[in-house]
Amino acid sequence: MELSIQSTNNQELIDITKEIETLILNSKIKEGICHLYLPHATAALTINENADPNIKTDLLKSLNKMVPLHDNYLHDSIDNNAAAHIKSTLVGVSLTIPISSNTLQLGTWQDIFLCEFDGPRNRNIIINIIQNKQ
Amino acid sequence: MELSIQSTNNQELIDITKEIETLILNSKIKEGICHLYLPHATAALTINENADPNIKTDLLKSLNKMVPLHDNYLHDSIDNNAAAHIKSTLVGVSLTIPISSNTLQLGTWQDIFLCEFDGPRNRNIIINIIQNKQ
Amino acid sequence: MELSIQSTNNQELIDITKEIETLILNSKIKEGICHLYLPHATAALTINENADPNIKTDLLKSLNKMVPLHDNYLHDSIDNNAAAHIKSTLVGVSLTIPISSNTLQLGTWQDIFLCEFDGPRNRNIIINIIQNKQ
Repeated sequence: MELSIQSTNNQELIDITKEIETLILNSKIKEGICHLYLPHATAALTINENADPNIKTDLLKSLNKMVPLHDNYLHDSIDNNAAAHIKSTLVGVSLTIPISSNTLQLGTWQDIFLCEFDGPRNRNIIINIIQNKQ
Repeated sequence: MELSIQSTNNQELIDITKEIETLILNSKIKEGICHLYLPHATAALTINENADPNIKTDLLKSLNKMVPLHDNYLHDSIDNNAAAHIKSTLVGVSLTIPISSNTLQLGTWQDIFLCEFDGPRNRNIIINIIQNKQ
Repeated sequence: MELSIQSTNNQELIDITKEIETLILNSKIKEGICHLYLPHATAALTINENADPNIKTDLLKSLNKMVPLHDNYLHDSIDNNAAAHIKSTLVGVSLTIPISSNTLQLGTWQDIFLCEFDGPRNRNIIINIIQNKQ
């Protein structure tokens, strides 16, 4: 299964929890794991809190301090997005979340986010649901 | 399966390798993958060395340099733990480890740790063992 | 399955995409997920762009700014590689990539890298391919 997401800013966190929950529901798989994969090198996937939307701002600001947007990166002379590549490696492009009773076992304070580091772009997410035989 | 861990400090790494190895043994699953998931947004899971316990101290100190405890985070006005949320995203909340001959295929210098960034708290870990048909 | 890789530098990114693609081809598994696991605590696995090889240099340089090679780490008095351990936790030691039509679903700009942070050393990668019943 694939999910297509259009980012609208250069950097932003987009909550995709509801879209993934709908796919799980439709799959009718009760017990197993859900694997999300982002086939892009200047974005990432993460899980964090969205009850306070400020965390999204804090996270992007903190990543930009760790990985400045421009810092004499060699890649910037070809494509001006080296920092986005580095942040993609730090955060990661895949997530695996357990499923129980046909429901994602996210914590109370956990939502799933696409992290756009070089938008706006159209991004795809590949979803695999692996059924547990137990 | 779930494992419950009580952290006792505000920040600490807790070695959970033996607990996970016992669950694998009891599962009797010989070949497959073991998936660990932490349903919390201010903690993380990682794999690193514990033969020298100093690595735990070095790792926490280094993370606190990258993500200072207080840095005008917007979320700190609501709940004073924005840095813990950011570190959770950097380290990650899930791990997948191969199983062979009913044993976790950890390297000689690898142990599994719960990373507490906003304790002391009670933390749960959800464990799924996926059998490989090969 | 295991793959053995000899690094030749102290720090380097080694592209292992072709080796993994060959293993998938030989497995004849059409739909599922491919799990890669590195049983080492001073190296990591990541996915990023290799079309411009400069990204490898930018990534290592950026990680070395975030985690200086020497910074009064306690572990350095025992084994002079604390920074390599910390970078292993930041980047991570496992990857899961979907397989469709017997092909890894990597994005156009995605290659798989072994990240050596304390070489030269011989490194193993454990590969599990989980077939999807759907």
